[in-house]
Amino acid sequence: MALKMSVDDLTRFMVAEFPQVASDLAIEDLSPMQLSLRLKVRQQHLRPGGTVSGPAIFALADVGMYLTVLSMIGPEALAVTTNCSLDFMRKPAAGADLIADVRLLKLGRVLAVGDALVRSVGAEEPAARASLTYSIPPARNA
Amino acid sequence: MALKMSVDDLTRFMVAEFPQVASDLAIEDLSPMQLSLRLKVRQQHLRPGGTVSGPAIFALADVGMYLTVLSMIGPEALAVTTNCSLDFMRKPAAGADLIADVRLLKLGRVLAVGDALVRSVGAEEPAARASLTYSIPPARNA
Amino acid sequence: MALKMSVDDLTRFMVAEFPQVASDLAIEDLSPMQLSLRLKVRQQHLRPGGTVSGPAIFALADVGMYLTVLSMIGPEALAVTTNCSLDFMRKPAAGADLIADVRLLKLGRVLAVGDALVRSVGAEEPAARASLTYSIPPARNA
Amino acid sequence: MALKMSVDDLTRFMVAEFPQVASDLAIEDLSPMQLSLRLKVRQQHLRPGGTVSGPAIFALADVGMYLTVLSMIGPEALAVTTNCSLDFMRKPAAGADLIADVRLLKLGRVLAVGDALVRSVGAEEPAARASLTYSIPPARNA
Repeated sequence: MALKMSVDDLTRFMVAEFPQVASDLAIEDLSPMQLSLRLKVRQQHLRPGGTVSGPAIFALADVGMYLTVLSMIGPEALAVTTNCSLDFMRKPAAGADLIADVRLLKLGRVLAVGDALVRSVGAEEPAARASLTYSIPPARNA
Repeated sequence: MALKMSVDDLTRFMVAEFPQVASDLAIEDLSPMQLSLRLKVRQQHLRPGGTVSGPAIFALADVGMYLTVLSMIGPEALAVTTNCSLDFMRKPAAGADLIADVRLLKLGRVLAVGDALVRSVGAEEPAARASLTYSIPPARNA
Repeated sequence: MALKMSVDDLTRFMVAEFPQVASDLAIEDLSPMQLSLRLKVRQQHLRPGGTVSGPAIFALADVGMYLTVLSMIGPEALAVTTNCSLDFMRKPAAGADLIADVRLLKLGRVLAVGDALVRSVGAEEPAARASLTYSIPPARNA
Repeated sequence: MALKMSVDDLTRFMVAEFPQVASDLAIEDLSPMQLSLRLKVRQQHLRPGGTVSGPAIFALADVGMYLTVLSMIGPEALAVTTNCSLDFMRKPAAGADLIADVRLLKLGRVLAVGDALVRSVGAEEPAARASLTYSIPPARNA
Protein backbone atom coordinates (compact mmCIF):
# COMPACT_ATOMS: atom_id res chain seq x y z
CA MET A 1 0.00 0.00 0.00
CA ALA A 2 1.32 3.42 -0.95
CA LEU A 3 1.30 6.67 0.98
CA LYS A 4 -1.36 9.18 -0.07
CA MET A 5 0.16 12.02 1.94
CA SER A 6 3.77 13.07 2.53
CA VAL A 7 5.30 14.49 5.71
CA ASP A 8 4.75 17.98 4.24
CA ASP A 9 1.11 17.22 3.40
CA LEU A 10 0.47 15.91 6.90
CA THR A 11 2.23 18.84 8.55
CA ARG A 12 0.18 21.37 6.57
CA PHE A 13 -2.96 19.42 7.47
CA MET A 14 -2.07 19.55 11.20
CA VAL A 15 -1.43 23.29 11.09
CA ALA A 16 -4.78 23.91 9.38
CA GLU A 17 -6.89 21.51 11.44
CA PHE A 18 -5.19 21.51 14.85
CA PRO A 19 -3.61 24.96 15.13
CA GLN A 20 -3.59 24.75 18.94
CA VAL A 21 -1.30 21.69 19.02
CA ALA A 22 0.49 21.66 15.66
CA SER A 23 3.44 23.72 16.89
CA ASP A 24 4.13 21.16 19.63
CA LEU A 25 4.31 18.22 17.23
CA ALA A 26 6.77 17.16 14.53
CA ILE A 27 6.65 14.14 12.23
CA GLU A 28 10.04 12.45 12.53
CA ASP A 29 9.55 9.58 10.14
CA LEU A 30 6.94 8.23 7.74
CA SER A 31 6.63 5.07 5.70
CA PRO A 32 3.61 3.04 4.62
CA MET A 33 1.66 1.98 7.74
CA GLN A 34 4.27 3.57 10.07
CA LEU A 35 4.88 7.04 11.49
CA SER A 36 6.95 8.55 14.30
CA LEU A 37 5.65 11.70 15.97
CA ARG A 38 7.57 13.93 18.38
CA LEU A 39 6.02 15.90 21.20
CA LYS A 40 8.13 18.96 21.94
CA VAL A 41 7.53 18.87 25.65
CA ARG A 42 6.63 22.28 27.10
CA GLN A 43 5.42 23.58 30.42
CA GLN A 44 1.75 22.92 29.64
CA HIS A 45 2.42 19.19 29.13
CA LEU A 46 3.89 18.71 32.58
CA ARG A 47 2.41 17.69 35.87
CA PRO A 48 3.74 19.14 39.10
CA GLY A 49 7.05 17.37 39.62
CA GLY A 50 8.07 17.69 36.01
CA THR A 51 6.78 14.51 34.40
CA VAL A 52 4.67 14.59 31.23
CA SER A 53 0.95 14.29 31.99
CA GLY A 54 -1.20 11.34 30.99
CA PRO A 55 -3.47 13.44 28.76
CA ALA A 56 -0.43 14.77 26.88
CA ILE A 57 0.79 11.20 26.27
CA PHE A 58 -2.68 10.14 25.15
CA ALA A 59 -2.90 13.13 22.79
CA LEU A 60 0.49 12.28 21.28
CA ALA A 61 -0.48 8.65 20.61
CA ASP A 62 -3.92 9.63 19.32
CA VAL A 63 -2.71 12.31 16.91
CA GLY A 64 0.09 9.98 15.80
CA MET A 65 -2.40 7.24 14.94
CA TYR A 66 -4.69 9.76 13.22
CA LEU A 67 -1.86 11.02 11.00
CA THR A 68 -0.79 7.45 10.19
CA VAL A 69 -4.33 6.62 9.06
CA LEU A 70 -4.58 9.84 7.04
CA SER A 71 -1.23 9.16 5.35
CA MET A 72 -2.79 5.97 3.93
CA ILE A 73 -6.33 7.13 3.09
CA GLY A 74 -5.93 10.83 2.35
CA PRO A 75 -7.14 14.04 3.95
CA GLU A 76 -10.67 14.16 2.62
CA ALA A 77 -11.59 11.13 4.70
CA LEU A 78 -12.92 11.46 8.20
CA ALA A 79 -11.75 9.17 10.95
CA VAL A 80 -12.66 9.16 14.63
CA THR A 81 -11.12 7.40 17.61
CA THR A 82 -13.45 4.73 18.94
CA ASN A 83 -11.14 2.97 21.40
CA CYS A 84 -7.83 3.65 23.07
CA SER A 85 -6.16 1.39 25.60
CA LEU A 86 -3.13 2.86 27.33
CA ASP A 87 -0.49 1.27 29.55
CA PHE A 88 1.59 3.74 31.52
CA MET A 89 4.82 1.95 32.37
CA ARG A 90 7.52 4.42 33.40
CA LYS A 91 7.69 8.11 34.17
CA PRO A 92 8.94 9.99 31.13
CA ALA A 93 12.36 11.54 31.64
CA ALA A 94 12.18 15.14 32.82
CA GLY A 95 13.17 17.67 30.19
CA ALA A 96 13.16 15.29 27.23
CA ASP A 97 10.82 15.25 24.24
CA LEU A 98 8.64 12.20 23.67
CA ILE A 99 8.49 10.12 20.50
CA ALA A 100 5.54 7.89 19.58
CA ASP A 101 6.32 5.12 17.11
CA VAL A 102 3.00 4.21 15.53
CA ARG A 103 2.33 1.16 13.41
CA LEU A 104 -0.91 0.43 11.62
CA LEU A 105 -1.85 -3.24 12.03
CA LYS A 106 -5.10 -3.16 10.09
CA LEU A 107 -6.50 -0.69 7.62
CA GLY A 108 -9.95 -1.99 6.83
CA ARG A 109 -12.90 -0.44 5.05
CA VAL A 110 -14.53 0.74 8.28
CA LEU A 111 -11.94 0.21 11.03
CA ALA A 112 -8.24 0.97 11.40
CA VAL A 113 -6.28 -0.63 14.25
CA GLY A 114 -2.80 0.25 15.37
CA ASP A 115 -0.50 0.69 18.30
CA ALA A 116 2.07 3.15 19.53
CA LEU A 117 5.15 2.85 21.70
CA VAL A 118 6.02 6.10 23.46
CA ARG A 119 9.59 6.80 24.64
CA SER A 120 11.49 9.75 26.00
CA VAL A 121 14.18 10.81 23.57
CA GLY A 122 17.38 9.16 24.76
CA ALA A 123 15.61 6.49 26.84
CA GLU A 124 15.79 2.86 25.88
CA GLU A 125 12.68 1.66 27.61
CA PRO A 126 9.17 2.80 26.71
CA ALA A 127 7.22 5.17 28.95
CA ALA A 128 3.84 4.09 27.60
CA ARG A 129 2.07 1.88 25.12
CA ALA A 130 -1.23 2.57 23.41
CA SER A 131 -3.51 0.59 21.13
CA LEU A 132 -6.03 2.56 19.14
CA THR A 133 -9.02 1.86 16.92
CA TYR A 134 -10.36 4.40 14.46
CA SER A 135 -13.69 4.25 12.71
CA ILE A 136 -13.62 5.40 9.08
CA PRO A 137 -17.04 6.62 7.99
CA PRO A 138 -18.06 5.78 4.42
CA ALA A 139 -17.15 8.46 1.87
CA ARG A 140 -20.06 10.76 1.20
CA ASN A 141 -20.15 10.26 -2.55
CA ALA A 142 -18.96 6.69 -2.69
CA MET B 1 -15.64 0.76 53.82
CA ALA B 2 -15.77 4.35 54.99
CA LEU B 3 -14.65 7.55 53.30
CA LYS B 4 -11.32 8.97 54.48
CA MET B 5 -11.79 12.29 52.68
CA SER B 6 -14.83 14.51 52.20
CA VAL B 7 -15.78 16.56 49.13
CA ASP B 8 -14.12 19.55 50.81
CA ASP B 9 -10.95 17.59 51.57
CA LEU B 10 -10.72 16.38 47.98
CA THR B 11 -11.40 19.82 46.55
CA ARG B 12 -8.64 21.38 48.68
CA PHE B 13 -6.33 18.58 47.60
CA MET B 14 -7.08 19.25 43.90
CA VAL B 15 -6.45 22.98 44.28
CA ALA B 16 -3.11 22.31 45.97
CA GLU B 17 -1.89 19.50 43.72
CA PHE B 18 -3.45 20.30 40.34
CA PRO B 19 -3.80 24.08 40.31
CA GLN B 20 -3.84 24.17 36.53
CA VAL B 21 -7.01 22.05 36.24
CA ALA B 22 -8.75 22.38 39.61
CA SER B 23 -10.83 25.38 38.57
CA ASP B 24 -12.33 23.40 35.67
CA LEU B 25 -13.47 20.53 37.88
CA ALA B 26 -16.16 20.15 40.53
CA ILE B 27 -17.10 17.13 42.62
CA GLU B 28 -20.84 16.68 42.25
CA ASP B 29 -21.35 13.65 44.42
CA LEU B 30 -19.37 11.34 46.71
CA SER B 31 -20.14 8.13 48.53
CA PRO B 32 -17.99 5.13 49.44
CA MET B 33 -16.46 3.71 46.24
CA GLN B 34 -18.36 6.24 44.04
CA LEU B 35 -17.79 9.80 42.87
CA SER B 36 -19.18 12.09 40.19
CA LEU B 37 -16.92 14.74 38.71
CA ARG B 38 -17.97 17.64 36.48
CA LEU B 39 -15.80 19.18 33.79
CA LYS B 40 -16.78 22.79 33.27
CA VAL B 41 -16.20 22.78 29.56
CA ARG B 42 -14.22 25.78 28.32
CA GLN B 43 -12.60 26.82 25.08
CA GLN B 44 -9.36 24.96 25.78
CA HIS B 45 -11.23 21.62 26.07
CA LEU B 46 -12.75 21.90 22.60
CA ARG B 47 -11.62 20.66 19.23
CA PRO B 48 -12.36 22.71 16.13
CA GLY B 49 -16.07 22.16 15.52
CA GLY B 50 -16.98 22.54 19.15
CA THR B 51 -16.82 19.01 20.52
CA VAL B 52 -14.86 18.17 23.68
CA SER B 53 -11.43 16.71 22.86
CA GLY B 54 -10.39 13.15 23.64
CA PRO B 55 -7.57 14.23 25.98
CA ALA B 56 -10.03 16.36 27.98
CA ILE B 57 -12.36 13.36 28.36
CA PHE B 58 -9.45 11.14 29.38
CA ALA B 59 -8.28 13.72 31.92
CA LEU B 60 -11.78 13.93 33.41
CA ALA B 61 -12.07 10.16 33.83
CA ASP B 62 -8.52 9.86 35.13
CA VAL B 63 -8.81 12.63 37.74
CA GLY B 64 -12.24 11.28 38.72
CA MET B 65 -10.79 7.83 39.36
CA TYR B 66 -7.83 9.31 41.22
CA LEU B 67 -10.10 11.30 43.55
CA THR B 68 -12.29 8.24 44.14
CA VAL B 69 -9.24 6.20 45.17
CA LEU B 70 -7.97 9.01 47.41
CA SER B 71 -11.37 9.36 49.08
CA MET B 72 -10.97 5.76 50.26
CA ILE B 73 -7.25 5.61 51.12
CA GLY B 74 -6.42 9.18 52.12
CA PRO B 75 -4.21 11.91 50.74
CA GLU B 76 -0.83 10.75 52.01
CA ALA B 77 -0.96 7.76 49.70
CA LEU B 78 0.46 7.86 46.24
CA ALA B 79 -1.37 6.28 43.36
CA VAL B 80 -0.47 6.22 39.68
CA THR B 81 -2.48 5.27 36.60
CA THR B 82 -1.14 2.08 35.08
CA ASN B 83 -3.87 1.34 32.53
CA CYS B 84 -6.76 3.19 30.96
CA SER B 85 -9.05 1.79 28.30
CA LEU B 86 -11.41 4.30 26.70
CA ASP B 87 -14.40 3.82 24.40
CA PHE B 88 -15.52 6.97 22.62
CA MET B 89 -19.15 6.40 21.70
CA ARG B 90 -20.86 9.67 20.87
CA LYS B 91 -19.81 13.26 20.34
CA PRO B 92 -20.40 15.23 23.52
CA ALA B 93 -23.12 17.84 23.15
CA ALA B 94 -21.76 21.27 22.19
CA GLY B 95 -21.89 23.79 24.99
CA ALA B 96 -22.68 21.35 27.81
CA ASP B 97 -20.52 20.35 30.76
CA LEU B 98 -19.48 16.72 31.10
CA ILE B 99 -20.05 14.49 34.13
CA ALA B 100 -18.02 11.37 34.87
CA ASP B 101 -19.70 8.85 37.15
CA VAL B 102 -16.88 6.79 38.63
CA ARG B 103 -17.28 3.54 40.54
CA LEU B 104 -14.49 1.67 42.23
CA LEU B 105 -14.81 -2.07 41.57
CA LYS B 106 -11.74 -3.19 43.47
CA LEU B 107 -9.63 -1.50 46.09
CA GLY B 108 -6.79 -3.91 46.75
CA ARG B 109 -3.53 -3.54 48.57
CA VAL B 110 -1.55 -2.75 45.43
CA LEU B 111 -4.14 -2.21 42.68
CA ALA B 112 -7.38 -0.26 42.40
CA VAL B 113 -9.73 -0.92 39.47
CA GLY B 114 -12.73 1.14 38.46
CA ASP B 115 -14.71 2.50 35.59
CA ALA B 116 -16.31 5.76 34.56
CA LEU B 117 -19.30 6.62 32.42
CA VAL B 118 -19.03 10.10 30.87
CA ARG B 119 -22.13 12.01 29.78
CA SER B 120 -22.95 15.51 28.64
CA VAL B 121 -25.17 17.24 31.17
CA GLY B 122 -28.71 16.81 29.91
CA ALA B 123 -27.90 13.86 27.63
CA GLU B 124 -29.29 10.42 28.32
CA GLU B 125 -26.71 8.39 26.49
CA PRO B 126 -23.03 8.24 27.44
CA ALA B 127 -20.39 9.98 25.36
CA ALA B 128 -17.57 7.77 26.58
CA ARG B 129 -16.65 4.93 28.91
CA ALA B 130 -13.34 4.36 30.63
CA SER B 131 -11.88 1.60 32.74
CA LEU B 132 -8.87 2.48 34.83
CA THR B 133 -6.30 0.70 36.94
CA TYR B 134 -4.22 2.48 39.55
CA SER B 135 -1.14 1.13 41.26
CA ILE B 136 -0.86 1.99 44.95
CA PRO B 137 2.77 1.94 46.07
CA PRO B 138 3.44 0.62 49.56
CA ALA B 139 3.45 3.30 52.25
CA ARG B 140 6.97 4.45 53.04
CA ASN B 141 6.82 3.69 56.74
CA ALA B 142 4.52 0.70 56.63
CA MET C 1 -35.73 0.40 21.50
CA ALA C 2 -37.60 -2.89 21.54
CA LEU C 3 -36.30 -6.44 21.76
CA LYS C 4 -36.24 -8.37 18.46
CA MET C 5 -35.57 -11.72 20.14
CA SER C 6 -36.89 -13.29 23.35
CA VAL C 7 -35.02 -15.48 25.82
CA ASP C 8 -36.44 -18.51 24.00
CA ASP C 9 -35.34 -17.19 20.61
CA LEU C 10 -31.83 -16.52 21.88
CA THR C 11 -31.59 -19.91 23.57
CA ARG C 12 -32.64 -21.72 20.39
CA PHE C 13 -30.11 -19.64 18.47
CA MET C 14 -27.31 -20.61 20.88
CA VAL C 15 -28.15 -24.30 20.65
CA ALA C 16 -28.11 -24.15 16.85
CA GLU C 17 -25.03 -21.98 16.41
CA PHE C 18 -22.86 -22.85 19.43
CA PRO C 19 -23.79 -26.46 20.25
CA GLN C 20 -20.46 -27.00 22.00
CA VAL C 21 -21.10 -24.32 24.66
CA ALA C 22 -24.89 -23.84 24.71
CA SER C 23 -25.49 -26.44 27.41
CA ASP C 24 -23.13 -24.57 29.78
CA LEU C 25 -24.96 -21.27 29.43
CA ALA C 26 -28.35 -20.00 30.56
CA ILE C 27 -29.94 -16.59 30.03
CA GLU C 28 -31.10 -15.40 33.44
CA ASP C 29 -32.61 -12.08 32.50
CA LEU C 30 -33.30 -9.98 29.41
CA SER C 31 -34.55 -6.48 28.84
CA PRO C 32 -33.80 -3.91 26.12
CA MET C 33 -30.03 -3.26 26.04
CA GLN C 34 -29.43 -5.59 29.05
CA LEU C 35 -28.91 -9.31 29.54
CA SER C 36 -27.62 -11.59 32.31
CA LEU C 37 -25.93 -14.83 31.32
CA ARG C 38 -25.00 -17.71 33.64
CA LEU C 39 -22.04 -20.00 33.16
CA LYS C 40 -22.76 -23.36 34.72
CA VAL C 41 -19.23 -23.94 35.90
CA ARG C 42 -17.93 -27.43 35.10
CA GLN C 43 -14.61 -29.21 35.27
CA GLN C 44 -13.47 -27.99 31.85
CA HIS C 45 -13.81 -24.33 32.94
CA LEU C 46 -11.43 -24.73 35.87
CA ARG C 47 -7.73 -24.21 36.24
CA PRO C 48 -5.72 -26.42 38.58
CA GLY C 49 -6.64 -25.19 42.05
CA GLY C 50 -10.31 -24.91 41.25
CA THR C 51 -10.72 -21.35 40.03
CA VAL C 52 -12.51 -20.54 36.76
CA SER C 53 -10.03 -19.96 33.93
CA GLY C 54 -9.53 -16.62 32.19
CA PRO C 55 -10.63 -17.96 28.79
CA ALA C 56 -13.88 -19.25 30.32
CA ILE C 57 -14.57 -15.80 31.82
CA PHE C 58 -13.77 -14.13 28.50
CA ALA C 59 -16.07 -16.55 26.66
CA LEU C 60 -18.91 -15.82 29.09
CA ALA C 61 -18.60 -12.04 28.66
CA ASP C 62 -18.20 -12.34 24.89
CA VAL C 63 -21.19 -14.63 24.33
CA GLY C 64 -23.22 -12.46 26.74
CA MET C 65 -22.45 -9.34 24.71
CA TYR C 66 -23.16 -11.16 21.45
CA LEU C 67 -26.59 -12.30 22.66
CA THR C 68 -27.39 -8.79 23.93
CA VAL C 69 -26.57 -7.34 20.50
CA LEU C 70 -28.61 -10.04 18.74
CA SER C 71 -31.59 -9.43 21.03
CA MET C 72 -31.70 -5.87 19.67
CA ILE C 73 -30.87 -6.41 15.98
CA GLY C 74 -32.15 -9.91 15.25
CA PRO C 75 -30.55 -13.21 14.30
CA GLU C 76 -30.02 -12.65 10.58
CA ALA C 77 -27.41 -10.01 11.33
CA LEU C 78 -23.78 -10.85 11.66
CA ALA C 79 -21.67 -9.30 14.38
CA VAL C 80 -18.03 -9.92 15.25
CA THR C 81 -15.97 -8.98 18.29
CA THR C 82 -13.38 -6.37 17.39
CA ASN C 83 -12.14 -5.41 20.86
CA CYS C 84 -12.35 -6.80 24.36
CA SER C 85 -10.67 -5.31 27.40
CA LEU C 86 -10.79 -7.45 30.52
CA ASP C 87 -9.92 -6.64 34.13
CA PHE C 88 -9.48 -9.68 36.34
CA MET C 89 -10.08 -8.49 39.90
CA ARG C 90 -10.76 -11.41 42.21
CA LYS C 91 -10.60 -15.17 41.99
CA PRO C 92 -14.08 -16.55 41.34
CA ALA C 93 -15.45 -18.56 44.24
CA ALA C 94 -14.76 -22.28 43.91
CA GLY C 95 -17.82 -24.33 43.09
CA ALA C 96 -20.12 -21.44 42.21
CA ASP C 97 -21.62 -20.54 38.84
CA LEU C 98 -20.70 -17.20 37.28
CA ILE C 99 -23.15 -14.51 36.13
CA ALA C 100 -22.27 -11.83 33.59
CA ASP C 101 -24.48 -8.73 33.71
CA VAL C 102 -24.16 -7.14 30.27
CA ARG C 103 -25.32 -3.67 29.34
CA LEU C 104 -25.24 -2.23 25.86
CA LEU C 105 -23.99 1.38 25.95
CA LYS C 106 -24.14 2.07 22.23
CA LEU C 107 -25.92 0.32 19.41
CA GLY C 108 -24.80 2.15 16.29
CA ARG C 109 -25.13 1.35 12.63
CA VAL C 110 -21.68 -0.25 12.42
CA LEU C 111 -20.45 -0.58 16.03
CA ALA C 112 -21.98 -1.82 19.26
CA VAL C 113 -20.25 -1.08 22.57
CA GLY C 114 -21.06 -2.57 25.95
CA ASP C 115 -19.65 -3.84 29.17
CA ALA C 116 -20.10 -6.79 31.48
CA LEU C 117 -19.64 -7.28 35.20
CA VAL C 118 -18.91 -10.91 36.11
CA ARG C 119 -19.66 -12.25 39.61
CA SER C 120 -19.73 -15.61 41.30
CA VAL C 121 -23.27 -16.48 42.35
CA GLY C 122 -23.54 -15.49 45.99
CA ALA C 123 -20.58 -13.10 45.90
CA GLU C 124 -21.06 -9.38 46.35
CA GLU C 125 -17.92 -8.20 44.65
CA PRO C 126 -17.18 -8.71 40.97
CA ALA C 127 -14.58 -11.22 39.82
CA ALA C 128 -14.02 -9.51 36.47
CA ARG C 129 -15.08 -6.66 34.23
CA ALA C 130 -15.08 -6.60 30.46
CA SER C 131 -15.74 -3.96 27.85
CA LEU C 132 -16.50 -5.16 24.37
CA THR C 133 -16.92 -3.69 20.91
CA TYR C 134 -18.72 -5.52 18.13
CA SER C 135 -18.64 -4.63 14.47
CA ILE C 136 -21.95 -5.04 12.67
CA PRO C 137 -21.41 -5.61 8.95
CA PRO C 138 -23.95 -4.00 6.62
CA ALA C 139 -26.89 -6.27 5.79
CA ARG C 140 -26.37 -8.02 2.47
CA ASN C 141 -29.61 -6.92 0.88
CA ALA C 142 -29.99 -3.56 2.59
CA MET D 1 18.50 -9.15 31.98
CA ALA D 2 19.18 -12.86 31.68
CA LEU D 3 16.78 -15.77 31.26
CA LYS D 4 16.05 -17.77 34.41
CA MET D 5 14.31 -20.60 32.53
CA SER D 6 15.09 -22.30 29.22
CA VAL D 7 12.62 -23.58 26.62
CA ASP D 8 12.94 -27.03 28.21
CA ASP D 9 12.32 -25.64 31.70
CA LEU D 10 9.23 -23.78 30.53
CA THR D 11 7.90 -26.77 28.62
CA ARG D 12 8.25 -29.04 31.67
CA PHE D 13 6.54 -26.37 33.75
CA MET D 14 3.61 -26.19 31.31
CA VAL D 15 3.18 -29.97 31.28
CA ALA D 16 3.14 -30.06 35.09
CA GLU D 17 0.94 -27.02 35.69
CA PHE D 18 -1.36 -26.94 32.65
CA PRO D 19 -1.66 -30.58 31.60
CA GLN D 20 -4.94 -29.90 29.83
CA VAL D 21 -3.43 -27.41 27.35
CA ALA D 22 0.29 -28.20 27.31
CA SER D 23 0.02 -30.65 24.43
CA ASP D 24 -1.57 -27.97 22.22
CA LEU D 25 1.26 -25.49 22.77
CA ALA D 26 4.89 -25.33 21.70
CA ILE D 27 7.51 -22.68 22.42
CA GLU D 28 9.03 -21.72 19.08
CA ASP D 29 11.53 -19.14 20.21
CA LEU D 30 12.84 -17.59 23.44
CA SER D 31 15.18 -14.74 24.22
CA PRO D 32 15.30 -12.25 27.09
CA MET D 33 11.95 -10.42 27.25
CA GLN D 34 10.64 -12.22 24.12
CA LEU D 35 8.93 -15.52 23.39
CA SER D 36 6.99 -17.06 20.50
CA LEU D 37 4.31 -19.61 21.30
CA ARG D 38 2.52 -21.86 18.80
CA LEU D 39 -1.04 -23.09 19.17
CA LYS D 40 -1.44 -26.38 17.37
CA VAL D 41 -4.96 -25.69 16.20
CA ARG D 42 -7.34 -28.60 16.79
CA GLN D 43 -11.06 -29.17 16.52
CA GLN D 44 -11.77 -27.87 20.03
CA HIS D 45 -10.24 -24.47 19.20
CA LEU D 46 -12.57 -23.87 16.26
CA ARG D 47 -15.89 -22.14 15.96
CA PRO D 48 -18.48 -23.42 13.50
CA GLY D 49 -17.18 -22.31 10.11
CA GLY D 50 -13.63 -23.32 10.89
CA THR D 51 -12.09 -20.18 12.35
CA VAL D 52 -10.19 -20.21 15.65
CA SER D 53 -12.36 -19.05 18.55
CA GLY D 54 -11.75 -15.85 20.51
CA PRO D 55 -11.19 -17.70 23.80
CA ALA D 56 -8.52 -19.88 22.15
CA ILE D 57 -6.72 -16.76 20.88
CA PHE D 58 -6.96 -15.15 24.31
CA ALA D 59 -5.60 -18.30 25.96
CA LEU D 60 -2.67 -18.39 23.54
CA ALA D 61 -1.72 -14.76 24.23
CA ASP D 62 -2.24 -15.14 27.97
CA VAL D 63 -0.16 -18.32 28.34
CA GLY D 64 2.50 -16.81 26.06
CA MET D 65 2.76 -13.74 28.28
CA TYR D 66 2.80 -15.91 31.41
CA LEU D 67 5.68 -18.02 30.10
CA THR D 68 7.60 -14.90 29.05
CA VAL D 69 7.28 -13.49 32.57
CA LEU D 70 8.30 -16.82 34.13
CA SER D 71 11.33 -17.08 31.85
CA MET D 72 12.60 -13.87 33.44
CA ILE D 73 11.59 -14.33 37.10
CA GLY D 74 11.65 -18.10 37.56
CA PRO D 75 9.05 -20.75 38.34
CA GLU D 76 8.68 -20.28 42.07
CA ALA D 77 7.09 -16.88 41.52
CA LEU D 78 3.39 -16.47 41.18
CA ALA D 79 1.94 -14.13 38.60
CA VAL D 80 -1.69 -13.46 37.74
CA THR D 81 -3.31 -11.69 34.80
CA THR D 82 -4.90 -8.45 35.90
CA ASN D 83 -5.72 -6.89 32.52
CA CYS D 84 -5.94 -8.05 28.93
CA SER D 85 -6.99 -5.89 26.02
CA LEU D 86 -7.56 -7.72 22.75
CA ASP D 87 -8.07 -6.45 19.21
CA PHE D 88 -9.45 -9.02 16.81
CA MET D 89 -8.45 -7.85 13.34
CA ARG D 90 -8.74 -10.68 10.84
CA LYS D 91 -10.14 -14.19 10.79
CA PRO D 92 -7.31 -16.66 11.33
CA ALA D 93 -6.66 -18.81 8.27
CA ALA D 94 -8.54 -22.13 8.36
CA GLY D 95 -6.34 -25.12 9.01
CA ALA D 96 -3.22 -23.20 10.07
CA ASP D 97 -1.56 -23.06 13.47
CA LEU D 98 -1.33 -19.73 15.25
CA ILE D 99 1.84 -18.08 16.55
CA ALA D 100 1.88 -15.43 19.27
CA ASP D 101 4.97 -13.23 19.33
CA VAL D 102 5.16 -11.86 22.86
CA ARG D 103 7.39 -9.03 24.02
CA LEU D 104 7.76 -7.87 27.58
CA LEU D 105 7.78 -4.07 27.74
CA LYS D 106 8.10 -3.71 31.49
CA LEU D 107 9.17 -6.13 34.17
CA GLY D 108 8.68 -4.27 37.41
CA ARG D 109 8.68 -5.36 40.99
CA VAL D 110 4.90 -5.75 41.15
CA LEU D 111 3.67 -5.42 37.56
CA ALA D 112 4.74 -6.88 34.22
CA VAL D 113 3.39 -5.38 30.99
CA GLY D 114 3.69 -6.82 27.51
CA ASP D 115 1.97 -7.35 24.24
CA ALA D 116 1.46 -10.12 21.73
CA LEU D 117 0.90 -10.18 18.00
CA VAL D 118 -0.97 -13.29 16.85
CA ARG D 119 -0.66 -14.56 13.26
CA SER D 120 -1.68 -17.64 11.36
CA VAL D 121 1.37 -19.57 10.23
CA GLY D 122 2.02 -18.49 6.64
CA ALA D 123 0.00 -15.26 6.93
CA GLU D 124 1.67 -11.88 6.70
CA GLU D 125 -0.91 -9.85 8.51
CA PRO D 126 -1.81 -10.33 12.17
CA ALA D 127 -5.10 -11.91 13.19
CA ALA D 128 -5.12 -10.35 16.65
CA ARG D 129 -3.20 -8.15 19.05
CA ALA D 130 -3.22 -8.35 22.82
CA SER D 131 -1.75 -6.25 25.60
CA LEU D 132 -1.47 -7.87 28.98
CA THR D 133 -0.64 -6.86 32.53
CA TYR D 134 0.43 -9.35 35.15
CA SER D 135 0.61 -8.75 38.86
CA ILE D 136 3.59 -10.34 40.59
CA PRO D 137 2.86 -10.94 44.27
CA PRO D 138 5.73 -10.37 46.67
CA ALA D 139 7.80 -13.49 47.39
CA ARG D 140 6.74 -15.07 50.67
CA ASN D 141 10.17 -15.10 52.22
CA ALA D 142 11.57 -11.99 50.63
